Amino acid sequence: MVRVGIVIGSETDRAMIEPALTVLQDMGVDYELSIISGHRNPARAREYGMEAADRGIEVIIAAAGGAAHLPGILASWTTLPVIGVPLPATDLKGLDALLSIVQMPGGVPVACVGIGKSGAKNAALIAVQIVGAKHEEIRLTYCKYKLEMGEGLV
Amino acid sequence: MVRVGIVIGSETDRAMIEPALTVLQDMGVDYELSIISGHRNPARAREYGMEAADRGIEVIIAAAGGAAHLPGILASWTTLPVIGVPLPATDLKGLDALLSIVQMPGGVPVACVGIGKSGAKNAALIAVQIVGAKHEEIRLTYCKYKLEMGEGLV
Amino acid sequence: MVRVGIVIGSETDRAMIEPALTVLQDMGVDYELSIISGHRNPARAREYGMEAADRGIEVIIAAAGGAAHLPGILASWTTLPVIGVPLPATDLKGLDALLSIVQMPGGVPVACVGIGKSGAKNAALIAVQIVGAKHEEIRLTYCKYKLEMGEGLV
Amino acid sequence: MVRVGIVIGSETDRAMIEPALTVLQDMGVDYELSIISGHRNPARAREYGMEAADRGIEVIIAAAGGAAHLPGILASWTTLPVIGVPLPATDLKGLDALLSIVQMPGGVPVACVGIGKSGAKNAALIAVQIVGAKHEEIRLTYCKYKLEMGEGLV
Amino acid sequence: MVRVGIVIGSETDRAMIEPALTVLQDMGVDYELSIISGHRNPARAREYGMEAADRGIEVIIAAAGGAAHLPGILASWTTLPVIGVPLPATDLKGLDALLSIVQMPGGVPVACVGIGKSGAKNAALIAVQIVGAKHEEIRLTYCKYKLEMGEGLV
Amino acid sequence: MVRVGIVIGSETDRAMIEPALTVLQDMGVDYELSIISGHRNPARAREYGMEAADRGIEVIIAAAGGAAHLPGILASWTTLPVIGVPLPATDLKGLDALLSIVQMPGGVPVACVGIGKSGAKNAALIAVQIVGAKHEEIRLTYCKYKLEMGEGLV
Amino acid sequence: MVRVGIVIGSETDRAMIEPALTVLQDMGVDYELSIISGHRNPARAREYGMEAADRGIEVIIAAAGGAAHLPGILASWTTLPVIGVPLPATDLKGLDALLSIVQMPGGVPVACVGIGKSGAKNAALIAVQIVGAKHEEIRLTYCKYKLEMGEGLV
Amino acid sequence: MVRVGIVIGSETDRAMIEPALTVLQDMGVDYELSIISGHRNPARAREYGMEAADRGIEVIIAAAGGAAHLPGILASWTTLPVIGVPLPATDLKGLDALLSIVQMPGGVPVACVGIGKSGAKNAALIAVQIVGAKHEEIRLTYCKYKLEMGEGLV
Repeated sequence: MVRVGIVIGSETDRAMIEPALTVLQDMGVDYELSIISGHRNPARAREYGMEAADRGIEVIIAAAGGAAHLPGILASWTTLPVIGVPLPATDLKGLDALLSIVQMPGGVPVACVGIGKSGAKNAALIAVQIVGAKHEEIRLTYCKYKLEMGEGLV
Repeated sequence: MVRVGIVIGSETDRAMIEPALTVLQDMGVDYELSIISGHRNPARAREYGMEAADRGIEVIIAAAGGAAHLPGILASWTTLPVIGVPLPATDLKGLDALLSIVQMPGGVPVACVGIGKSGAKNAALIAVQIVGAKHEEIRLTYCKYKLEMGEGLV
Repeated sequence: MVRVGIVIGSETDRAMIEPALTVLQDMGVDYELSIISGHRNPARAREYGMEAADRGIEVIIAAAGGAAHLPGILASWTTLPVIGVPLPATDLKGLDALLSIVQMPGGVPVACVGIGKSGAKNAALIAVQIVGAKHEEIRLTYCKYKLEMGEGLV
Repeated sequence: MVRVGIVIGSETDRAMIEPALTVLQDMGVDYELSIISGHRNPARAREYGMEAADRGIEVIIAAAGGAAHLPGILASWTTLPVIGVPLPATDLKGLDALLSIVQMPGGVPVACVGIGKSGAKNAALIAVQIVGAKHEEIRLTYCKYKLEMGEGLV
Repeated sequence: MVRVGIVIGSETDRAMIEPALTVLQDMGVDYELSIISGHRNPARAREYGMEAADRGIEVIIAAAGGAAHLPGILASWTTLPVIGVPLPATDLKGLDALLSIVQMPGGVPVACVGIGKSGAKNAALIAVQIVGAKHEEIRLTYCKYKLEMGEGLV
Repeated sequence: MVRVGIVIGSETDRAMIEPALTVLQDMGVDYELSIISGHRNPARAREYGMEAADRGIEVIIAAAGGAAHLPGILASWTTLPVIGVPLPATDLKGLDALLSIVQMPGGVPVACVGIGKSGAKNAALIAVQIVGAKHEEIRLTYCKYKLEMGEGLV
Repeated sequence: MVRVGIVIGSETDRAMIEPALTVLQDMGVDYELSIISGHRNPARAREYGMEAADRGIEVIIAAAGGAAHLPGILASWTTLPVIGVPLPATDLKGLDALLSIVQMPGGVPVACVGIGKSGAKNAALIAVQIVGAKHEEIRLTYCKYKLEMGEGLV
Repeated sequence: MVRVGIVIGSETDRAMIEPALTVLQDMGVDYELSIISGHRNPARAREYGMEAADRGIEVIIAAAGGAAHLPGILASWTTLPVIGVPLPATDLKGLDALLSIVQMPGGVPVACVGIGKSGAKNAALIAVQIVGAKHEEIRLTYCKYKLEMGEGLV
């Protein structure tokens, strides 16, 4: 069952989000990857946000560069936790995306991670933590990962 | 007839947008001021964006601080020109809002002006220029303003 | 039962974190507030991180200014989700804290929110979302909040 | 009939402005491209600004890097709307150009877009919106573009 | 005889430029202070730049905030050395003005000093150095100032 | 006898720290290089910090990129001087690491040097100065280096 | 016997350096405070740097704002360790001083601490660590301070 | 006769300063190029600064990256005008050098130009303006250059 919905704004962002896919695969957490531009196709973003919880999605990861409104837009349409990944897609190297994602107004939270691939990896790990809050076996998988990391195994 | 739609995200942004209101009043361009949070009430923002052109609005001015997605969200829902005013509402003094507004992805334009009250004034002047593209008397009003400014009268 | 552990580095950060406390109180999510300097008393931070899950804490919120290592330090000692709130405690107005919190290395995630009080509020909301992943009544409380926000009631 | 005047400061900026040319060509809006350095040849910039409206130009797009005064200089000499495109021409990667263009003083507006090629594309789209305010067929072309973008066709 | 022409964009910048006036008075270098907005009244700025050398001006000091094009505009119209003083007139605290002044394109130099009053003082000292290149008694006055500064007298 | 303990967070940082190794070798100051991630393996970092002085280490050099908590974490566990080297490991080119290292809270000092290889070299030189405070022959080696540098020999 | 030489560029910087004085007094480390402008009186700065070691000074702390060359200038004239404290003396709030102090070229190290009073306190603590490398009783004083800090006593 | 003294800190900066050499050669202004590190060899920098005027030098151009103290150090030792060129020699791409050069304290001026090669070119042009203040034929050469630039010939 798909528990994590990953959304990127365009095909060109796929490489950046790869580390998130790897983490979820390795930890056995089902996910889906959608390409939805919050600005070019706001109706699709709205639909995605409004239906995600009903479809069983438990967490949304949204990655975007530049003005990077996608995580905030999805957060406005859903009650699910939204994790935003700022991408270094412009000449400002992700500083623009970082500020656009992290400085959300009080009331509509987005959980922001670091710029680029490290951030994508951590976004997936936060998603696993959140999914793990409900699903004990996933929580244990995360704990095992943490232990192995301490031992230098991952 | 209302030609310029001004949107702010909350009552607290009103003082910052005042210079825009003054310009429009002085130049005889009708406007309306709406308070719509793009994140707290995305349905209202969507409705505003989708209906604005049909209601006769010719230009939208949207001011916002922090992540400042409002102008971009409205731009995603309308074919009207959208002018974004970054507000210095956070500890980052509007740098966050500036980058969030100006770095829009190719395809969904927002015309960005400077941070704060000077920006608000200029947003109104751009709105007047755009409205003036269609309405000759408003174009002439703008030309007169420009002349008087050169003479130090305004 | 205490589900959210809030940690600040010193008494002077208390005012900044207030909005988080208000959110949790309003939503009926029990929390505790601890003052632990990750640098001055790393043993206490370690102890807190290692014991939090066993004590029933489900999410940790850590707020810090300047170098702002506290969220990352706690994240290194726990498998719980850690939400970091950058505080504008220095002349750099929180930009230092933001980068120190958000740019965590891949493998040890911290979920970062905006600088200062808005961020603190959103940190609490994310905590509620995460706690709500497990506790249905809290999830419903969050959904109700979201609905009321859309109606301008909160 | 030429409706959009595009100005760059030197031949080396041509590649950056290409996306604007493509948009205007695709939408059937006539334009001209001029190379005028506002600083090296201020007399030519003045002449361009003063005569643009009389020559039938309806909007000016000016792209520049570094100190990037060109859009502001043209705006000082014309009553036409001026759209400024900051270019990443220096070691500061366009941040200098962005601030130089967007922070215009109240009274002399420039509509700023994002840094580089995405900005150039959006500058053209804003130009089309403005020209479309007067010319219904161009407005419809823009609306069609917007619709197709929503459907992923452009 | 007036040797240094000081130009500010508006009356509100006068306090910031005061230290420059004091230096020139103390060193016995005649100056004039003009208020000319490069953007609001480009014709006046052009006239000033074109006539300055003929009027006997030997150096121009121009102070401006925000987009701060004034020094560059004057430099485009004159062969005299132009010293630019960035003013902290906006929410960006002079960083915008600094970049707008200092990042001039190759071929049209502006000598930039620090932001605000310290910069204004140093602009006057550079002006004295330049005037002193031609007028021996002024050069000696500067040397005396330098000596006294080393002795802590000024 | 090992007097300088150098710590990096991962194998990938080794090239950046090379100049420090060269300085210490050239000056005959024994060192050890350890790879310890402060976040992935906080227990190891704690152990290192707590035991370093007892093992005879006199100064610690810690290099890290991104959130760069390593120097601060080590400083929290030891009474030895800690020198932090910010590395340009992310899209923010070391600005993040710099602020994370240098903005330590009052009470827990880290001596920060420049970003990257120049910083690494200087970190080693500061380490030599500190070791030289106790060991006269090393102090003299540093003085000789300084003299030769003045003569352009090193 | 004076072991720590503290240098500030002007009387106005005294308040910022106070926390350093308090630390040294509390820990019983003798110091002297000198006011020497590296730029206004380079001969005095040179003399100070060249004589400091011979006068028994073991560490130099130099605090400065703006271009903040003082620590680097002293470092160029001495073989003693130099700790630089960036002060928030300009509109850039110490970011200028931070970069000017921390980005020293390879070969001439300055140990940089945080901006302002927290940095000043930590500069003194690093000085105590360095002096303590040679003087056992001072090293023990620092260890005691560290212990008490962990217990929340200081 | 050598009128312009150009100083760089190391051989590696030579390429960056080339455009300055070209300008001076083209305009027939004699110069000398010296390599002096202000930090590694402060005695040589002092000597250079103290003797430059007596040797007939009329203007000094100093280029440096990173902490970039060289222009300020030379300015402290001479009464000649000093023009500083910030070089993009570090990961911060010249922003560090820019702030270090431009934010000089009141009393010791440095005339700053843009980062890198464009700045180097403009430094030479300012030097020509200053030398031209005294030497009429050089002033005329500059005026001719300015004219030809306006005609697109240079």
